Amino acid sequence: MFVVPLIERKRDGGALTPEEWSALIAAYTQARVPDYQMAALLMAVVFRGLERQELAALTDAMLASGQRLSFDGWATPRVDKHSTGGVGDKVSLVLAPLVAACGVAVPMMSGRGLGHTGGTLDKLESIPGFRTALSLAETKQQVQRLGCAMIGQTPEIAPADRRLYALRDVTGTVEAIPLIAASIMSKKLAEGLTALVLDVKRGSGAFLPDLKQGLELARTMIALGEDRGCPTVALLTAMDRPLGRACGNALEIEEAILALRGEGPPDLMTVTSSKARKKLESALGSGLAAEKFEQLIEAQGGNPRVVEDPAVLPQALAVEVYAAAATGVVVRIEPRTVGRAIVAMGGGRLQVEDSVDPTVGFVISIKPGDKVLAGEPIASVYARDASGVELGCQALGRAIVIADRLTEKPLPLVSHRVTKAGVEELGSTLPRRGPRPRAAPRD
Amino acid sequence: MFVVPLIERKRDGGALTPEEWSALIAAYTQARVPDYQMAALLMAVVFRGLERQELAALTDAMLASGQRLSFDGWATPRVDKHSTGGVGDKVSLVLAPLVAACGVAVPMMSGRGLGHTGGTLDKLESIPGFRTALSLAETKQQVQRLGCAMIGQTPEIAPADRRLYALRDVTGTVEAIPLIAASIMSKKLAEGLTALVLDVKRGSGAFLPDLKQGLELARTMIALGEDRGCPTVALLTAMDRPLGRACGNALEIEEAILALRGEGPPDLMTVTSSKARKKLESALGSGLAAEKFEQLIEAQGGNPRVVEDPAVLPQALAVEVYAAAATGVVVRIEPRTVGRAIVAMGGGRLQVEDSVDPTVGFVISIKPGDKVLAGEPIASVYARDASGVELGCQALGRAIVIADRLTEKPLPLVSHRVTKAGVEELGSTLPRRGPRPRAAPRD
Repeated sequence: MFVVPLIERKRDGGALTPEEWSALIAAYTQARVPDYQMAALLMAVVFRGLERQELAALTDAMLASGQRLSFDGWATPRVDKHSTGGVGDKVSLVLAPLVAACGVAVPMMSGRGLGHTGGTLDKLESIPGFRTALSLAETKQQVQRLGCAMIGQTPEIAPADRRLYALRDVTGTVEAIPLIAASIMSKKLAEGLTALVLDVKRGSGAFLPDLKQGLELARTMIALGEDRGCPTVALLTAMDRPLGRACGNALEIEEAILALRGEGPPDLMTVTSSKARKKLESALGSGLAAEKFEQLIEAQGGNPRVVEDPAVLPQALAVEVYAAAATGVVVRIEPRTVGRAIVAMGGGRLQVEDSVDPTVGFVISIKPGDKVLAGEPIASVYARDASGVELGCQALGRAIVIADRLTEKPLPLVSHRVTKAGVEELGSTLPRRGPRPRAAPRD
Repeated sequence: MFVVPLIERKRDGGALTPEEWSALIAAYTQARVPDYQMAALLMAVVFRGLERQELAALTDAMLASGQRLSFDGWATPRVDKHSTGGVGDKVSLVLAPLVAACGVAVPMMSGRGLGHTGGTLDKLESIPGFRTALSLAETKQQVQRLGCAMIGQTPEIAPADRRLYALRDVTGTVEAIPLIAASIMSKKLAEGLTALVLDVKRGSGAFLPDLKQGLELARTMIALGEDRGCPTVALLTAMDRPLGRACGNALEIEEAILALRGEGPPDLMTVTSSKARKKLESALGSGLAAEKFEQLIEAQGGNPRVVEDPAVLPQALAVEVYAAAATGVVVRIEPRTVGRAIVAMGGGRLQVEDSVDPTVGFVISIKPGDKVLAGEPIASVYARDASGVELGCQALGRAIVIADRLTEKPLPLVSHRVTKAGVEELGSTLPRRGPRPRAAPRD
């Protein structure tokens, strides 16, 4: 395949035809196009973008490179949710069992931690025995039986995306909206969904901090979904502070379980149940949602007792209470600083092959706007050893800014709803204040 | 070496430090940085350019990757000339012996044909026995003895450039002024010169057809040369029609020999002797220049009789006279069409490993502005067989445009002189009309 003219055309602002994208992605997946040519083309796309038709063709080609889940003839509606990634973001862990408990199937495919953000797969794998590597056949069977499965990207789904993503990761071509959109949607569209919700993070801890870029990504993915017969809606949500209180793999599973029992922190519950609140709240209150998670964990080989007793989760060896350094108002809790600290403490990856320590992380019991007294316990640090505790405390010292008054306004938790019809700006949805939870270690 | 942050910084409009360029090029030359990362970085450079300091550091790093010719303690001035490439451009073949005959040394390193343009090495190798692959030691010795050598890029000189150039060629990253400038200058600065002349082509047959781009390339290379102690001057010359009459490897050697005897076509002589005309013309008239070429050919293993008797050159098997298709004025002779036809007829390369047939090409005896009669012989086609002749005639039919009147003005042969002091626009330097040469085959 003669790729240079295609690279040159994209470089010079032109477009590739759908047939060219299709042939190129097929050839690349079969290693008939070298990485260096694809890298040059991807960098040209970073600068030139993709026309709508090109993006559709690229996504279709990535989708066509692998297999799809097929639920033909099964009447149950099937939804999934995608998050662009954040710190403390355990919405997927709560949402999948919760929605399944309400009778809607959730064939959920998630990813691993990336940069300063955590990954649903890493979190689930802190449950002793939990398997995320189900085959497509196993996944389909479990979804039809239980109403939900939570798996990693299988080798059968969009292999072109696997190869492209690995290349983008090492060539500075991750941050391009059309490439992000094609990567996400080529996987989601393979799940046989009847609807898709996108959680697009904004704020300093998001991959695309800027609202404008977040909206563009939302619109791009919605167009891709709708054009392929999958009704798609996006919510823009705040990632200028961690979501919920727990940050770190096992710690977030514990918090998700509390949420499934109806005891989650208010911000987490707001983002989780932005729509259809009544029905969802009843599923939480009745214990059905927590029970569904128990079934899912059991089905995927994990120890289901974890739902009743989070002490089944692996426990950090060193735990320390972190106290407020000053009296005043919490102005900011910088999620990137928190997320990077978790990675540095061993709870995330610096390289793909790194293993993750599920026990490390933070539980932060304050939010921007809260008043604190110097010396008051406001967080707990979970680490492998004393030096990890030290590192974690230092990071919290940088991440948590306390001042005389609230000098900046936190982002509304859910600020925009995007559909194919357009963008709707939502009113301020700062959560009702819940009771201040204990900051002490889990015992 | 962690390259991703460097790629991202360049992508986002930042600059790499001189130390970073140095380390990166050293690592790439030793294959410690993969091609796909360098390809992504090069594409980012295509869009973002290089700051002056970065360009200097890149050029120095490429220069430092290999060895240099050193003439320390030798008082004779040493010059070289670089052309950005054209069709029928045999100026180097005339200039090197001519300047050497005037007492100035010429350690000339040239390249092969690229795209529609011919290459000095391919042309020289049509002389039976001629060796272009001299070592640096052989080159130095011959330059000190004879005053000139004409060689290809040796493996010792700028190996980083060889590797980078091969990658650029297959990743759509050739056409970036800083990359072109660094590639050229890293080789020229390795020749131990006391001065350098750049022939920057403009017009439809040039790699950078646009005058603005040509000027930018000239200024960029001049800054690089001057900053490194090598006085550098550039001339912008016309490539909206082939230079001289002969196009094709052996045919151009023959025309160059005629020129060295003082019998060259006027446009070729104008570009060759744009400066210091008096001294050069006397070298031509006295036969000294032709004699110098004879010595050079003999020194590099070629048959020196070629200077007296061009029939020593390999001869095309099929030759045909091409007649004007209409009566009128020659408006245009499109060099790209001519150059591509030579490639298609076997006189150039479609792939790096292709061999070149030196005999094929054209002798075109008209110039834009000339009046012609329908049926008048205006060119000769030299080919391997009847189908090559057919191909060549069709190409001339497309390349040569004849109309009622001169609807477009040909570019002045030499239009601008660029030095570190600035750009000087030169008066029209259309050559004096010489006698119309015979268009018939050479014998």
